[in-house]
Amino acid sequence: MRRYAITTDCLLAAFAVALCLLFSGVMRSAHAQEALPSWNDTGARSRIMDFVTATVTEGSEGYVAPADRIAVFDNDGTLWSEQPVYNQLAFVFDRVKALAPQHPEWKSKEPYKSAIAGDIKGVAQNGQKGLTDLLAATHSGMTTDQFSKIVSDWFASAKHPKTGRPYDEMTYLPMRELLDYLRANGFKTFIVSGGGVEFMRPMTEKMYGIPPEQVVGSTITTEFAIVGDVPVLKRLPKLDFVDDGKGKPTGINRFIGRKPIFVAGNSDGDYEMLRWVTAAKGPGFAMVVHHTDADREVAYDRKSAIGKLDKALNEAERRNWLIVDMKADWKKVFAFEQ
Amino acid sequence: MRRYAITTDCLLAAFAVALCLLFSGVMRSAHAQEALPSWNDTGARSRIMDFVTATVTEGSEGYVAPADRIAVFDNDGTLWSEQPVYNQLAFVFDRVKALAPQHPEWKSKEPYKSAIAGDIKGVAQNGQKGLTDLLAATHSGMTTDQFSKIVSDWFASAKHPKTGRPYDEMTYLPMRELLDYLRANGFKTFIVSGGGVEFMRPMTEKMYGIPPEQVVGSTITTEFAIVGDVPVLKRLPKLDFVDDGKGKPTGINRFIGRKPIFVAGNSDGDYEMLRWVTAAKGPGFAMVVHHTDADREVAYDRKSAIGKLDKALNEAERRNWLIVDMKADWKKVFAFEQ
Repeated sequence: MRRYAITTDCLLAAFAVALCLLFSGVMRSAHAQEALPSWNDTGARSRIMDFVTATVTEGSEGYVAPADRIAVFDNDGTLWSEQPVYNQLAFVFDRVKALAPQHPEWKSKEPYKSAIAGDIKGVAQNGQKGLTDLLAATHSGMTTDQFSKIVSDWFASAKHPKTGRPYDEMTYLPMRELLDYLRANGFKTFIVSGGGVEFMRPMTEKMYGIPPEQVVGSTITTEFAIVGDVPVLKRLPKLDFVDDGKGKPTGINRFIGRKPIFVAGNSDGDYEMLRWVTAAKGPGFAMVVHHTDADREVAYDRKSAIGKLDKALNEAERRNWLIVDMKADWKKVFAFEQ
Repeated sequence: MRRYAITTDCLLAAFAVALCLLFSGVMRSAHAQEALPSWNDTGARSRIMDFVTATVTEGSEGYVAPADRIAVFDNDGTLWSEQPVYNQLAFVFDRVKALAPQHPEWKSKEPYKSAIAGDIKGVAQNGQKGLTDLLAATHSGMTTDQFSKIVSDWFASAKHPKTGRPYDEMTYLPMRELLDYLRANGFKTFIVSGGGVEFMRPMTEKMYGIPPEQVVGSTITTEFAIVGDVPVLKRLPKLDFVDDGKGKPTGINRFIGRKPIFVAGNSDGDYEMLRWVTAAKGPGFAMVVHHTDADREVAYDRKSAIGKLDKALNEAERRNWLIVDMKADWKKVFAFEQ
């Protein structure tokens, strides 16, 4: 009887131990074998894995304490598609169309007229002023709660113009695996994007496993007011902060407050952020997604109006930045591919 | 032999299980008995614990998913002392004195002359302009890295004018226990302070267990530049964002991007933040630290120049905000008390 009891306890204990090990990360080394499954077995994959392995290996030269394992990712063209137009610009066009019945004057007034017609070139002819007017018309004049709902509703129905897929499927599978892999190794992952922060936050948890408080982006001015007895934040037609180019290191410093050790971008808008991360003392890894795959996605770089990539291509070798070749390095681009 | 082997395995397994349990939080209920040890067994302590217990109890009306357990804390007067002057103002005075030899003209020029003499009233006579000048002289003109070192060095040597203690000992022990208690229950804790974010960040991890990226505060404008081949962020003499009063809900929205369910403040500068958190749908808990203890700290509220507390005292009952009476509710104020 006694022996039986011990055996039962022992089985239970062993089962509990197995569960504990499973969830505590002791089985991580086994998992590492399967890390980044949508990456081909090329130099890119092994350079990333070598860096991460060093950061988690106590005693290694590249070891980094868990609290300092901060990774930052650009969004447009790095985590999700940015062609043929930025997703947020597609949102702007759709919102102008949806709001048009309340603004009959827009039918004959630029830039609204072009936006309603879906004429990107027509909108572009109105320059920065035209874009600012469209942003004001579609991104301000409501509370933050209302805007969040507008964004969520749009994502629930809008489709990518080329693939016909919902935008939350237009994320790069290898990059999502990279986010998971970094987090499994104790990294805290952030988005640092030129996109509007409140356009991204309703979706980033679902799409990337990144919570709202780890999304840095461009911001609009908001104003607190108590309406009746209800406190609200109103979105004003005034840009507050542009998180692009030189704004990215500024945004990282303002919102995160320490230097990341891992950065991923894809365009000249990420150049300063790449410089900032890799100039820090100690380990620092920079990678650039190079859009080389016209069959599975799009091929563009130095001469593109969207996602222009020039400076990093010139300097990558000198600065030891990894250029990821989508066509060669990725088995799959999107999860929905056959 | 067989039996012996099983027994050894079993002991090892049991040891592993105990370790797993210890670190996985299953022993949390035992720990809860000891939660908030520096709080007296008054209504304040039990109201806090009842709220937290509800948020972690699945199936209860007050249950909140772990990702939404966001708690925000004011700093000055809520987590650390703000009397006789804000700690950051003490830093300003010390910095002006340290920099004075490089600025001989300051000897006869206000507000520097008063600051060098440690004459707070004299500085105050120069109004907002005087304060802005002092902030510019002490908080800008260097890189972010340089400023971080200046702040860390100051904290390593400066002493509180009343107690003679280093500033990192001037934190309220019951509040640090509250931070620990919330985190042990899955809360993510943030500071939302009117203080300069780069004045707080070098110290918050050590003082409160709050990492830099979870500190929201007032910000100065920074500018990215590449000097030689080295990227730097320069601090400019221009205020960017004041995270006080109406700025607090704005800052929460901008930096955190969702509504906290727990808020702690101590002054009218926290009023809008208290309103914002407790107006949200679903559970929301607000508490106000009321400085009632002239023996162990200071007693002040409605008429104080620093940390004026008026609105929340008027509205606490109506809005179901907890007023914490330092004298009655706290066994100890500071850890160094006998």
